[in-house]
Amino acid sequence: MEDTLEGLFFPESIALYGIPRGIKPGKVFLLGLLDQGFGGPIHLIHPSAREIDGYRTYQSLDQVPGPVDLVIVMSPRDTVFDALDQCARRHVKAVILYTSGFSELGDETGREAEARMRRIARDGGFRILGPNCMGVLSPDSRIAPFPGMPKTSGKLGFISQSGSLVNLFVNECSNKGLAFSHVVSIGNGVDVDMADLLEWMGRDDKTLIICSYCEGTRDSARLVRALRGTTAHKPVIMWKVGLTAAGSRAAASHTGAMTGKVDLWNSLFRQFHVLDVYDIEEMTDLAMAFYNLEPGGAARVVIISGPGGPAVSAADAVERSGLSMAVPGEESIRRLRALLPPTGTSLDNPIDVGLGASFDVGLYQGALEIILDDPGVDTVVILGGGASTEMSADFVQGIIRAKAGTDKNVIAIAYPGFVQIDQKELLRPLYEHGIPVYPTPERAVRAYARMVRYHRYRSARG
Amino acid sequence: MEDTLEGLFFPESIALYGIPRGIKPGKVFLLGLLDQGFGGPIHLIHPSAREIDGYRTYQSLDQVPGPVDLVIVMSPRDTVFDALDQCARRHVKAVILYTSGFSELGDETGREAEARMRRIARDGGFRILGPNCMGVLSPDSRIAPFPGMPKTSGKLGFISQSGSLVNLFVNECSNKGLAFSHVVSIGNGVDVDMADLLEWMGRDDKTLIICSYCEGTRDSARLVRALRGTTAHKPVIMWKVGLTAAGSRAAASHTGAMTGKVDLWNSLFRQFHVLDVYDIEEMTDLAMAFYNLEPGGAARVVIISGPGGPAVSAADAVERSGLSMAVPGEESIRRLRALLPPTGTSLDNPIDVGLGASFDVGLYQGALEIILDDPGVDTVVILGGGASTEMSADFVQGIIRAKAGTDKNVIAIAYPGFVQIDQKELLRPLYEHGIPVYPTPERAVRAYARMVRYHRYRSARG
Repeated sequence: MEDTLEGLFFPESIALYGIPRGIKPGKVFLLGLLDQGFGGPIHLIHPSAREIDGYRTYQSLDQVPGPVDLVIVMSPRDTVFDALDQCARRHVKAVILYTSGFSELGDETGREAEARMRRIARDGGFRILGPNCMGVLSPDSRIAPFPGMPKTSGKLGFISQSGSLVNLFVNECSNKGLAFSHVVSIGNGVDVDMADLLEWMGRDDKTLIICSYCEGTRDSARLVRALRGTTAHKPVIMWKVGLTAAGSRAAASHTGAMTGKVDLWNSLFRQFHVLDVYDIEEMTDLAMAFYNLEPGGAARVVIISGPGGPAVSAADAVERSGLSMAVPGEESIRRLRALLPPTGTSLDNPIDVGLGASFDVGLYQGALEIILDDPGVDTVVILGGGASTEMSADFVQGIIRAKAGTDKNVIAIAYPGFVQIDQKELLRPLYEHGIPVYPTPERAVRAYARMVRYHRYRSARG
Repeated sequence: MEDTLEGLFFPESIALYGIPRGIKPGKVFLLGLLDQGFGGPIHLIHPSAREIDGYRTYQSLDQVPGPVDLVIVMSPRDTVFDALDQCARRHVKAVILYTSGFSELGDETGREAEARMRRIARDGGFRILGPNCMGVLSPDSRIAPFPGMPKTSGKLGFISQSGSLVNLFVNECSNKGLAFSHVVSIGNGVDVDMADLLEWMGRDDKTLIICSYCEGTRDSARLVRALRGTTAHKPVIMWKVGLTAAGSRAAASHTGAMTGKVDLWNSLFRQFHVLDVYDIEEMTDLAMAFYNLEPGGAARVVIISGPGGPAVSAADAVERSGLSMAVPGEESIRRLRALLPPTGTSLDNPIDVGLGASFDVGLYQGALEIILDDPGVDTVVILGGGASTEMSADFVQGIIRAKAGTDKNVIAIAYPGFVQIDQKELLRPLYEHGIPVYPTPERAVRAYARMVRYHRYRSARG
């Protein structure tokens, strides 16, 4: 049964049912496929047009020559069942149902229509994603729900009950150097739901980390089974919303989801070590840690900092998070003493390279190289920058050079208020070299510690 | 006794003791005063030079003509006591002691030297700030510890046991439209300490909000008294570090501070409603809320959002934080129905203006105006942006226009992944109009709710 999802992710031919003539929202699906360079046939279905944007159109799926694997339906609500009947006749593998106006309206009609969709899909032997969803991004299959989506694939999967978060989270992760294997917008989830997708991504070789935005589920027993089967071998980062009365009402009118009780969800997360997060920042923080950092070793951390105050708070964060502050060896101390000025610096961990390092960013690179050589260190958090944009760019290059010779973790901090260090352009080289960047050491350490704990849990399960 | 701090904040004449000839760290104090345009005489003291950078220098304070209110001492450690003896002879009001190498080195010599400084200050009738500190920023007195500091004053005070955080936090707040009354770097705090400064800023008419970075105190009883006297009429936001063994060791080698036990500090914070924060982001979040938002009304919040997912999570955040989701009136619903497209939107709170609003950002402004007219609403959190940088700039201007006609709170969200909405240049107009901007609704609501709770506590005290 599970292999039936392949039609969503690996279609060889696609039909767009109800493609609009002008620039209307539905047009994005065509633009998305063209932008990705989808390699198979794309068939356009329109009730009356003969041709749209220079492409031949058909009035129904019945007229389309050759097989159709996937149909993206964007036609008005009252035409959806006709479209689904055509899909059944053509033996399609999967349908992405963008059309909205069903259970999210909160009336009985919508729920009845969704039950009918489920029956048609089951009887027709195909799967339905949606309704009220944006569909799928799979860069290796060259399919995307919007134009401008990344064309390179990676190891992150994302399952979302919000279509707009597909766009926002993919953008944000791309800015931070993370790439996706598959991204799915579930919508109302009448057939393919969170549990199906967790199980499928759990088995998918390309997906090594799963992020999800979850409003709720219609079948919590299946979701529990899916989590049990997935979290033991792949991390599942879950942003669960709708856990208050206000949030639950909002979710109901958004995707018609049944959101459930906060205690039940929390015990579920604890039991299966689901990595629950509070907002998009925390989800991105954790995704970056899993994507870039090695969980091995004793997670012994060294902080290297120019400013002294943030170094003290970083040491607090390390200890609070259950990680340990590394003790640099005698050789490291000897080399640091030779490198750093005698006053306004500290050779203990946190290593304070002094304020002068803002004018001589080579001190940062030098200290980082010394500490990366130390066998008692697993991970370095480096916080600093230059006194000018140019010097901050040199600081960034220094980190990249030092990291090049080692498998140890290096985490960079783009501290608020440091000269231009939060500019995207300045940080891009770090992301491109797989060095995650966080705004504060507190956020970096929190994400790294959760990643380490998850891997210890998984090792303990054997 | 307390008025003796005036010499630090309102000096009419300043001497720089031990000003270096070349570009060395100590030179920043001269550059800072010149950059601010300090109006009184600045006297340079150097052991041998006759002239530095075109300014006449003196070999000792004794030779300086006219009164000297404040002396900034940056000469080497072994000259400090000679400098302090000269200060006593000249009846100065205050000394800022930049020179480091005392108790932060962890030896008995440093502690003895600091005890001797305290005696000299007491006997000489002047106050000492430091050693190992950066001094004071007071824009209205035109004094600053570095060049490039803000020249406009505001209602935020900052007391810091880290000199580098003075620079970083002031920069970050300036980026977000917040201005400072006075900023003080305490250093090792041999004489003027956190308690003195809390009391002084508590009485200062210009300072309405106090932020602090605190490593520890030598006299906790005095700090308790200072907090009791201050938090009842001014909010004190405190970033307390050194609460773990690692953090405590780091603080000891940073400013020689005694950091104390976490339980004691936490009970102190609860008892006096100190607003404790975890990192610089949380401190800035809270400072923005106190600086820009009105605590009045019933704190009834409306969320206006383009993307649906973040709107659901924002509703969760409002309810979790103890605020209430406003119920828009019938008139508002009627006007919203006339404004917004019939599908893909929601008129309930959270108000979902639909994805089309990215292409028609006037929908954001229209919805915001309608909701700001609603007598049942105190605060609006608006999350959105345009489909291009230009449209996002229009979105920003729309918020400013809608806010212009009202005293209600408007909080803007620059959501991660939204087109260019996190660009500093794009957001600057919002900050300039006193509209705080947060990256997520979760962070916005958390800060706003803490601000509201603090004001309720203060009202309850009467």
